[in-house]
Amino acid sequence: MIQRNPGFSNISAGYLFPEIAKRRREYAASHPGAEIISLGIGNTTEPIPQYITEGMLAEVKRLSTREGYSGYGDEQGLTSLREKISEVFYNGKVSPEEIFISDGAKCDIGRIQLLFGSGVSVAVQDPAYPVYVDGSVITGAAGGMKSGGACGYDGITYMPCTAENGFFPDLSVIPENSLIYFCSPNNPTGAAATKKELEILVDVAKQKGGIIIFDAAYSAFIRDESIPKSIMEIEGAKSCAIEINSFSKPAGFTGIRLGWSVVSKELLYADGSPVIADWNRIMTTVFNGASNIAQYGGLACLDPEGLREMRQMTDYYLENARLIRDVLLGSNFAPLNLNIYGGVNAPYLWVSFPGFKSWQVFDLILDKCHIITTPGSGFGPAGEGFIRFSSFGHREDMQRAAERLAGLKL
Amino acid sequence: MIQRNPGFSNISAGYLFPEIAKRRREYAASHPGAEIISLGIGNTTEPIPQYITEGMLAEVKRLSTREGYSGYGDEQGLTSLREKISEVFYNGKVSPEEIFISDGAKCDIGRIQLLFGSGVSVAVQDPAYPVYVDGSVITGAAGGMKSGGACGYDGITYMPCTAENGFFPDLSVIPENSLIYFCSPNNPTGAAATKKELEILVDVAKQKGGIIIFDAAYSAFIRDESIPKSIMEIEGAKSCAIEINSFSKPAGFTGIRLGWSVVSKELLYADGSPVIADWNRIMTTVFNGASNIAQYGGLACLDPEGLREMRQMTDYYLENARLIRDVLLGSNFAPLNLNIYGGVNAPYLWVSFPGFKSWQVFDLILDKCHIITTPGSGFGPAGEGFIRFSSFGHREDMQRAAERLAGLKL
Repeated sequence: MIQRNPGFSNISAGYLFPEIAKRRREYAASHPGAEIISLGIGNTTEPIPQYITEGMLAEVKRLSTREGYSGYGDEQGLTSLREKISEVFYNGKVSPEEIFISDGAKCDIGRIQLLFGSGVSVAVQDPAYPVYVDGSVITGAAGGMKSGGACGYDGITYMPCTAENGFFPDLSVIPENSLIYFCSPNNPTGAAATKKELEILVDVAKQKGGIIIFDAAYSAFIRDESIPKSIMEIEGAKSCAIEINSFSKPAGFTGIRLGWSVVSKELLYADGSPVIADWNRIMTTVFNGASNIAQYGGLACLDPEGLREMRQMTDYYLENARLIRDVLLGSNFAPLNLNIYGGVNAPYLWVSFPGFKSWQVFDLILDKCHIITTPGSGFGPAGEGFIRFSSFGHREDMQRAAERLAGLKL
Repeated sequence: MIQRNPGFSNISAGYLFPEIAKRRREYAASHPGAEIISLGIGNTTEPIPQYITEGMLAEVKRLSTREGYSGYGDEQGLTSLREKISEVFYNGKVSPEEIFISDGAKCDIGRIQLLFGSGVSVAVQDPAYPVYVDGSVITGAAGGMKSGGACGYDGITYMPCTAENGFFPDLSVIPENSLIYFCSPNNPTGAAATKKELEILVDVAKQKGGIIIFDAAYSAFIRDESIPKSIMEIEGAKSCAIEINSFSKPAGFTGIRLGWSVVSKELLYADGSPVIADWNRIMTTVFNGASNIAQYGGLACLDPEGLREMRQMTDYYLENARLIRDVLLGSNFAPLNLNIYGGVNAPYLWVSFPGFKSWQVFDLILDKCHIITTPGSGFGPAGEGFIRFSSFGHREDMQRAAERLAGLKL
């Protein structure tokens, strides 16, 4: 019989979100009257705006007519959408042929790992979105869990992002010739790397012969104009970085599925051959294009009216973040000496409660306020002591959550 | 710098369809008046039917309302869609939890290869849909091109499907513990395996400890009631087969992207652990669900009115196949002693022209009839001498193609 792929025996069970769900269930069962509000997972709640909706309705209607019907499109995406992304997000400095439309950033991360195979060394921010590590373990680029009680997987280099280093890690730990996963604005810490920091990152990647996988899925939340929205704004990034991005959060496309990747012709392997050729091969061999309806939604997003709607959407969630942030900054929490980060150029707040472990704070807030958060320790060892508040939710739920937090007797 | 994944240096350039496109371009340039009709690639041409369209329109409208909006769904798909597929296609004999909704069969093939990793041995029908082999080479399950002028890749076992064996291969060549790719109704040969043949396939897979990857993407074209539409109809298949299927061809969803896979709880690895647990992990780690709009389209497909529309759609393409088949069976072609297969329970005709090579026939039909076909040799060594006619096209194009073929002076 067929042996199990060793990557799967190495990977530990998905622990974080199932454990949260279990504690929520148990709490709800023993407290039937509690109206629980979730500020846990980063799932969008606000409806698709009107102009973007119209773009999708028009495409569905076209597909039902003989003249407007189209079957398979180019696996790399609609040319018009690639051109528009090039223009709107990159001022034409990335060419449309270097942009690949996808069904979302998470799926692109999986394909990127397939692109580089099991032989590559991997470095990740700690804490980090779990898929970077889990996917690396599945493809065999990482080994088993570290022994002797140490956290993390063999073969993965963890780069702690802490309050002490301003959530920008010490890059000297990165091994030569590594894939370097870097997310900014960051999930979960909410930290948005400055131009200077990204210049250092690009420098180090070049020195060490690495390739940065830059996850820009939250770039639409950046309001500070000095903060780059793309690694491609940094000189030299084209030859050492792949960028992934998504319509999920700014347009509410989490369920509609649309994203893109940027792989420049300047990005080369050690043998001098272009990575883009293999990326094109991956996208045409094990992918068959994002849904055409989603792609026409994406086109509408990038019209002036769609851009305004996405701006309103991200403003809405940022205002939610502000509501929670203000309460945590208020007098009620003063005795706890909280450390509060994020929520400004990002939809996540990252908060440490000195003297408490992440799960203790989770349980406390669930019990006292009936609010679900995400324990930071679930994102990596350096997340211990923190919890993440997500700002994705209806305004009135956020307001109720803010009121409960403000009334919390400590 | 990062080394290239050796799988990509092993894979030969995608040859078939670019070469067809090149010959078409060159012919069109030198014959500007020629109205070329494509019976080449299997791309759907008929619009999405009305009831199915309504299902998608309703979902887009719901997504634009506060009450109807939904963000991330379960990565495995809508429960209602999994239940309906279980009921409509499997009479409840496959449980909804064993059905995983995807963005299409091609993408599922890629994820299946990631599931089993680089250590597995692979057997494919020859000729075959190229993605089975190309994907295996990318993951490293296959090696480089065979040396010494032999066709195919090292590490892949080719199972010739020829007129002599009725397009059902000699299974004795399959190595122990292999993934066995099997497509029925077959692309490109149009052969639909009988119940008896599938029983033999399941028997051999069990004896040899293999797992069948059963590609049923064309099952909706089966009209002969004695032919199984699913490998899961065969006793014992649940413990030795994975099935993949798609809405692409019957509902015209090639651009909308919706398919599904079946992995039974009974399917086990050598160590006795269930494959479904790892498949679930793959689907939740490197995939994020099919577009919710496509999924509501799929739900509409499986209502009685949607099933009628899919039946009409497949009838339409089968009638196209009959038109071409009748011409090839007619007196005009009698001197050529053609061998004509498929086109009855499948949308492809597979035709050999004794004494000619595939590309010779391709060029002849392009030159004399201005019709694009697909040379069978592009699907594998055993396809040499054949060409594939696709029946995906507008009726009037098919009629014109049939007239041109009928008038061909041989």
